Amino acid sequence: MSYFNEIGTIQYEGAKSDNPFAFKFYNPTESINGQTMEEHLRFGVAYWHTFTEDLSDPFGNGTAIRPWDKFNGMDLAKARVEAAFEFFEKLQIPYFCFHDVDIAPEGSSLKESNENLDTVVAMIKEYMKDSKTKLLWNTVNNFTHPRFVHGAASSNNADVFAYAAAKVKKGLEVGKELGAENYVFWGGREGYETLLNTNMKLELDNLARFFHMAKDYANEIDFNAQFLIEPKPKEPTSHQYDFDVASGYAFLQNYDLQDTFKFNIEANHATLAGHTFEHELHYARIHNMLGSVDANQGHPLLGWDTDEFPSDIYTTTLAMYEILKNDGLGKGGLNFDAKVRRGSFTAEDLFHAHIAGMDSFAIGLKVAQRLMDDRVLENVVEDRYRSFNQGIGRDIVSGKTDFHQLEKHALTLSEITQPSGQLEVIKNKINQYLLTTFA
Amino acid sequence: MSYFNEIGTIQYEGAKSDNPFAFKFYNPTESINGQTMEEHLRFGVAYWHTFTEDLSDPFGNGTAIRPWDKFNGMDLAKARVEAAFEFFEKLQIPYFCFHDVDIAPEGSSLKESNENLDTVVAMIKEYMKDSKTKLLWNTVNNFTHPRFVHGAASSNNADVFAYAAAKVKKGLEVGKELGAENYVFWGGREGYETLLNTNMKLELDNLARFFHMAKDYANEIDFNAQFLIEPKPKEPTSHQYDFDVASGYAFLQNYDLQDTFKFNIEANHATLAGHTFEHELHYARIHNMLGSVDANQGHPLLGWDTDEFPSDIYTTTLAMYEILKNDGLGKGGLNFDAKVRRGSFTAEDLFHAHIAGMDSFAIGLKVAQRLMDDRVLENVVEDRYRSFNQGIGRDIVSGKTDFHQLEKHALTLSEITQPSGQLEVIKNKINQYLLTTFA
Amino acid sequence: MSYFNEIGTIQYEGAKSDNPFAFKFYNPTESINGQTMEEHLRFGVAYWHTFTEDLSDPFGNGTAIRPWDKFNGMDLAKARVEAAFEFFEKLQIPYFCFHDVDIAPEGSSLKESNENLDTVVAMIKEYMKDSKTKLLWNTVNNFTHPRFVHGAASSNNADVFAYAAAKVKKGLEVGKELGAENYVFWGGREGYETLLNTNMKLELDNLARFFHMAKDYANEIDFNAQFLIEPKPKEPTSHQYDFDVASGYAFLQNYDLQDTFKFNIEANHATLAGHTFEHELHYARIHNMLGSVDANQGHPLLGWDTDEFPSDIYTTTLAMYEILKNDGLGKGGLNFDAKVRRGSFTAEDLFHAHIAGMDSFAIGLKVAQRLMDDRVLENVVEDRYRSFNQGIGRDIVSGKTDFHQLEKHALTLSEITQPSGQLEVIKNKINQYLLTTFA
Amino acid sequence: MSYFNEIGTIQYEGAKSDNPFAFKFYNPTESINGQTMEEHLRFGVAYWHTFTEDLSDPFGNGTAIRPWDKFNGMDLAKARVEAAFEFFEKLQIPYFCFHDVDIAPEGSSLKESNENLDTVVAMIKEYMKDSKTKLLWNTVNNFTHPRFVHGAASSNNADVFAYAAAKVKKGLEVGKELGAENYVFWGGREGYETLLNTNMKLELDNLARFFHMAKDYANEIDFNAQFLIEPKPKEPTSHQYDFDVASGYAFLQNYDLQDTFKFNIEANHATLAGHTFEHELHYARIHNMLGSVDANQGHPLLGWDTDEFPSDIYTTTLAMYEILKNDGLGKGGLNFDAKVRRGSFTAEDLFHAHIAGMDSFAIGLKVAQRLMDDRVLENVVEDRYRSFNQGIGRDIVSGKTDFHQLEKHALTLSEITQPSGQLEVIKNKINQYLLTTFA
Repeated sequence: MSYFNEIGTIQYEGAKSDNPFAFKFYNPTESINGQTMEEHLRFGVAYWHTFTEDLSDPFGNGTAIRPWDKFNGMDLAKARVEAAFEFFEKLQIPYFCFHDVDIAPEGSSLKESNENLDTVVAMIKEYMKDSKTKLLWNTVNNFTHPRFVHGAASSNNADVFAYAAAKVKKGLEVGKELGAENYVFWGGREGYETLLNTNMKLELDNLARFFHMAKDYANEIDFNAQFLIEPKPKEPTSHQYDFDVASGYAFLQNYDLQDTFKFNIEANHATLAGHTFEHELHYARIHNMLGSVDANQGHPLLGWDTDEFPSDIYTTTLAMYEILKNDGLGKGGLNFDAKVRRGSFTAEDLFHAHIAGMDSFAIGLKVAQRLMDDRVLENVVEDRYRSFNQGIGRDIVSGKTDFHQLEKHALTLSEITQPSGQLEVIKNKINQYLLTTFA
Repeated sequence: MSYFNEIGTIQYEGAKSDNPFAFKFYNPTESINGQTMEEHLRFGVAYWHTFTEDLSDPFGNGTAIRPWDKFNGMDLAKARVEAAFEFFEKLQIPYFCFHDVDIAPEGSSLKESNENLDTVVAMIKEYMKDSKTKLLWNTVNNFTHPRFVHGAASSNNADVFAYAAAKVKKGLEVGKELGAENYVFWGGREGYETLLNTNMKLELDNLARFFHMAKDYANEIDFNAQFLIEPKPKEPTSHQYDFDVASGYAFLQNYDLQDTFKFNIEANHATLAGHTFEHELHYARIHNMLGSVDANQGHPLLGWDTDEFPSDIYTTTLAMYEILKNDGLGKGGLNFDAKVRRGSFTAEDLFHAHIAGMDSFAIGLKVAQRLMDDRVLENVVEDRYRSFNQGIGRDIVSGKTDFHQLEKHALTLSEITQPSGQLEVIKNKINQYLLTTFA
Repeated sequence: MSYFNEIGTIQYEGAKSDNPFAFKFYNPTESINGQTMEEHLRFGVAYWHTFTEDLSDPFGNGTAIRPWDKFNGMDLAKARVEAAFEFFEKLQIPYFCFHDVDIAPEGSSLKESNENLDTVVAMIKEYMKDSKTKLLWNTVNNFTHPRFVHGAASSNNADVFAYAAAKVKKGLEVGKELGAENYVFWGGREGYETLLNTNMKLELDNLARFFHMAKDYANEIDFNAQFLIEPKPKEPTSHQYDFDVASGYAFLQNYDLQDTFKFNIEANHATLAGHTFEHELHYARIHNMLGSVDANQGHPLLGWDTDEFPSDIYTTTLAMYEILKNDGLGKGGLNFDAKVRRGSFTAEDLFHAHIAGMDSFAIGLKVAQRLMDDRVLENVVEDRYRSFNQGIGRDIVSGKTDFHQLEKHALTLSEITQPSGQLEVIKNKINQYLLTTFA
Repeated sequence: MSYFNEIGTIQYEGAKSDNPFAFKFYNPTESINGQTMEEHLRFGVAYWHTFTEDLSDPFGNGTAIRPWDKFNGMDLAKARVEAAFEFFEKLQIPYFCFHDVDIAPEGSSLKESNENLDTVVAMIKEYMKDSKTKLLWNTVNNFTHPRFVHGAASSNNADVFAYAAAKVKKGLEVGKELGAENYVFWGGREGYETLLNTNMKLELDNLARFFHMAKDYANEIDFNAQFLIEPKPKEPTSHQYDFDVASGYAFLQNYDLQDTFKFNIEANHATLAGHTFEHELHYARIHNMLGSVDANQGHPLLGWDTDEFPSDIYTTTLAMYEILKNDGLGKGGLNFDAKVRRGSFTAEDLFHAHIAGMDSFAIGLKVAQRLMDDRVLENVVEDRYRSFNQGIGRDIVSGKTDFHQLEKHALTLSEITQPSGQLEVIKNKINQYLLTTFA
């Protein structure tokens, strides 16, 4: 059975193609600095936004029109698996990601939910045998059900903590079964509505206990996935504990988890926290904590998570620059945690949007690689900081100085002159690279 | 005397030039749809940011290093005029803009201030004779001096109102003397710190009286400049009366000023008000109120007016699209109300930044024209709204229907289906146009 | 049948009461300056947040536990009416408000929807006979159903425009049937997702046509309700046309609707637009456009509409100050467009939250009246602007002056000195009034 | 000589006093739970905002009128010391705080600057002998001078690093000389304008080296002050490294500085970072990192540091609640890092504003103590988390469980029910406490 029978496999047709069902910039087999585009970009489809999402919003019912709408319950779950693997194949996507509830409906008990999961996981495993598409990461949804109203691992209710643990336990087993390369924790309700009724210390302690137990269990079952925390500042909570990468890093260090976790960094979450996407990637990279990426974008004038498909080529270029500087994403990938707009409700839009996102990151990859090849930013940085390669600068960096020596040096200085930072030149240079790469 | 003797006239060298003192995209004589780039773009240099600004910020003293720093008082004012016209010529810029206090120092009395102005205006007039650079607009600064602490035309103090009026009177005379094509009102302190001590009704009434008197005086002296209000939501006030174009339009209509004023729209002011730049341009355009543009950009994560030189080619493209749809800017222009970053403190950076800004808008112009030539957005819009060309839609638009007839029609409808908005397709198309225009 | 049988009628018990089911500050029969508190405050219950809302959010299913959850379809609609009037009576609330879809389920056709409405409206009318609670306003929901995905009166689809008109026509009839004192238009989808595919001019023209037709029909059926537009800047759209009161006022003037509409001002919408609540009330008041109020509050750090019950007594005080300066709300009222938090999911919380909101506005009323009685702010304002009562100031205000005379006056001025604005003194005074009013 | 001879010592006159030069709520000798108000609140005057600040803003020259304006250079510095101690005495303030450049002008060399400092420090030391006012903390200004344009300890220029170190060395010596109880680091320029030219890793490493050397030197000279980092997210930089408390804590842990530093938390910096003030205090408190407080407030609708005097009694109450839970501030205090509004330019306003701030925190202290005495929030929290005192909850907290046991427990659970969070009840209760404490 085909769900998208009017659409063929998406091909690369080049920058001037008029075909909306073709890649214009993403050419999976094109080699960039010794790796194919596909290997560099490691794209993933988000099951929830593509196969489960109905495009409802707080003021409106769902608008999505999907070929599998006619099914219900487990039949719907199975239809989605079929549609998903058809979609993956037509898009030539190497990875996908899911939450437990995306792939199988919750039952009336934990036991029944797990049985539903087992059925669908077995089906997915079968499909994966004949597919090149692998599982980038899985996770469990510990935020949608009303039981998680006051949190999951940071709930005030020990039963909820236990329930959340049981779900993650199953999630780890599913991840192992399907060969997931990563396992993600997004703490959607791990935060607070108000400090006035919250024991933050106990909640943070419990969250850490939860993470330790999760890692212990993964080790026990030999599930070698990279563990990832996904920061977000707020929404649905008023304040989420993993506000941004730095907050998450403070937490991980404080609870001795910094060696077992890295970060899954989402563009829209970065901007909601008051950071650029590239800041979060950079900060994680230099602390050796960059794990994986949720590739989307927010709307700079809207204060909620819009999860748009990435199209801003400044952002994709600077993101790919950080990823190239990181020597790639390792086990991680670029997961499209992005949804088509409410007004883009047809099944065709799912293809259009992924093509747009993949093209945008392909552009970013090529421009970033060219910037690196020409050492555009590297030269700027080396030149700016050259004073630390000699004299007092070298002493500072090598730890050979103290306030006495520094004062002595300072007393010898007359007016300090220094070169311009030249931001306008650099920005114009980046425009030049963008506009001439595909010439 | 030369202030920038190491820098020659800036030439167009094309998209791949490595010369930081060359235009890569702006080619003033290149023809686009029957007009030269110079005629389309009507660039202006802002005197204050380029010749007066010292790059201080609320936490730091000025860093700017300028060849005219050695002068003081009226000598400084004259040196700046010399430098300005050298700068204009080297940049081949067709326009400039100033406030009264940018070109001449305030004296110890209004009389002395006016005499200072007269001296410098005469000097500028002489320079203009031998220069192609004309005065896009002038204005007076009614916000920096402590007398304006509680506002100018909206002050609680009638003496301040009178003082502000006298300054604008002089400003109109100066504008006439120098052939200004526009006269701008930015109400930096026309708003409030707090409602608690404010009589907003009286202040708005007085503001309107002030504008009427200004227009009357301009008419009296046959000064035919286009009158422009420049909206900004806040900063330095907590709330400025001309919050955005719509607020300004409400005010103008309410006080019967809508036919004598248009708007000078600044990109950074738009985003501070919660709008995109193109929204403000579009809103003004369809209400026939688009007068001129302050071409800069803000930082999407910073909550104050950063006045950066424009470099975002999405924004310049969509801005130029609105301007082309407006059949150009008429008497208005693209004034760089933009300052080099505090770290870009050399005189050379002034050239670099203007080149970056001019290139960015030249890119925008070419891409926007190509989008229009191919009717990319026009076709989308025509297709989306085609239901208003026939049947009940035509009746609605032509005013031939009422709620009875509409209900009757609605009762005949079964489920209404409609096409996707296809935002992802459109955004990807714009990326394609950006990346292939300079191929 | 009782839905809240464990809860009695809420009584006033005074500021130190520990009873969570008692008013501490709201005493409906207490007289303030010649009117009872009930007459001043004209509180309304929002049907949607209190009887329909399930407390779902974009990341979670509903948590609300309601005594009427066991019903479905029209039975559910009827149970809600029974519960509503029990709730109104126990809360002694004088008004309520609803959208069409709050009170009756949509049918499979417009005809069936209207029949459902007729049934429930008849039932409500019966209940109103024995109740003191009246209909403050009604409206129709033209934003939730997928047909409104691209707007309603500003849709690109003429059929949708017609459908929206038919719903408003019915809404006006329902309003007349139930004696609604106002009719509200909140344009939830009247805006755009993106300018790129939008014909804003046509959409605004159509919106105006729609409003004119609505008013014409109301006149035709002798429905004398006050017509109200409710501004909101965005959400669910990226940009709503009625961004704020000033934007709405620009629109109304431009389309000659300024005499037939006023504004329904919501606190949370004000802050999302970058204004204080009191700014929006004040601006509307001095333009004679203050119609009614949606009494809620936002979270200052969250970028979406949280619709919290009002508890900030600074805001309620300044809001009541504006309302008292307006000589009350006329036909309008204080509608609690507010929902209990997701974590406050019990039926009891509905009472707690309304009590909190009513107490907060009762506090505001009493403090504002005391501030006015003592002319605290009036004296500040009179003193600050006294220069406009004499000399050049009086000439300015009476229109007897021009730029010549003002310049002449200004030339006589030496340094202008003026008094401090004393914001810190005023704010401390307000704290004093807050803390000593209930002593 | 007297600078404020028309103003007497400020006395406590009680909540209904009409005297603007009296405390209405702050009664320094009043005992609250075993300590005087003065001991609880440990108020400090910020030298820069009170004696150096001229109330200029980015769009306006200074408006402040000060009795010491007639002096210049070192005479001005000395006059300010005289005025300061008169001010401290009249206000009965126990502490003050300063940057090096607040008290003495920079010379033409580091040596001359240090000599200027020595002169003024000696004078201050003399004044302190006869004064009860002590030095809460000092710091050095490493952000105003143009040499710090690219940062200080995180500069790209080793000479600047050395210069910054020499200034801090002197600052530590001055602190020791005057008995400072704390030493503060606010990294005004320790961040970046753009990532594009920034070596963040080197900058962070250098910053850590700088802090280690500073601590080493303090130890060397036996200066036992508490070391404090003051987070701020941005402004003047686009991104400051100490974005918020969590970011700072991540940094301190990463560089093994967590035992030698605590945080100086500023209210306005908290809100600019997207947190409530109480969040930052709470987070610091539970990590044992709460050192001292910069007591001011921001404007919720403005995106820059407004540094207003605190007047919001919700915020002061919740801040004092955190401070009481912390068993007080230890060596820290409540420093008014707050400036009078630009429109409040008289010397009298300096008194009014401090009185307003002191009263506001006195209110907060009394209400917070009463809330604690009645265990209002403690009872809520204890009740909410009681499931962790028994059964599976106790096992979780005591580390006796794992995912196997938790799953086993979860499988036994049917639907989990839990109590409401009752936020509306709690907020109303806080209003009650506010309004009845001074009855």
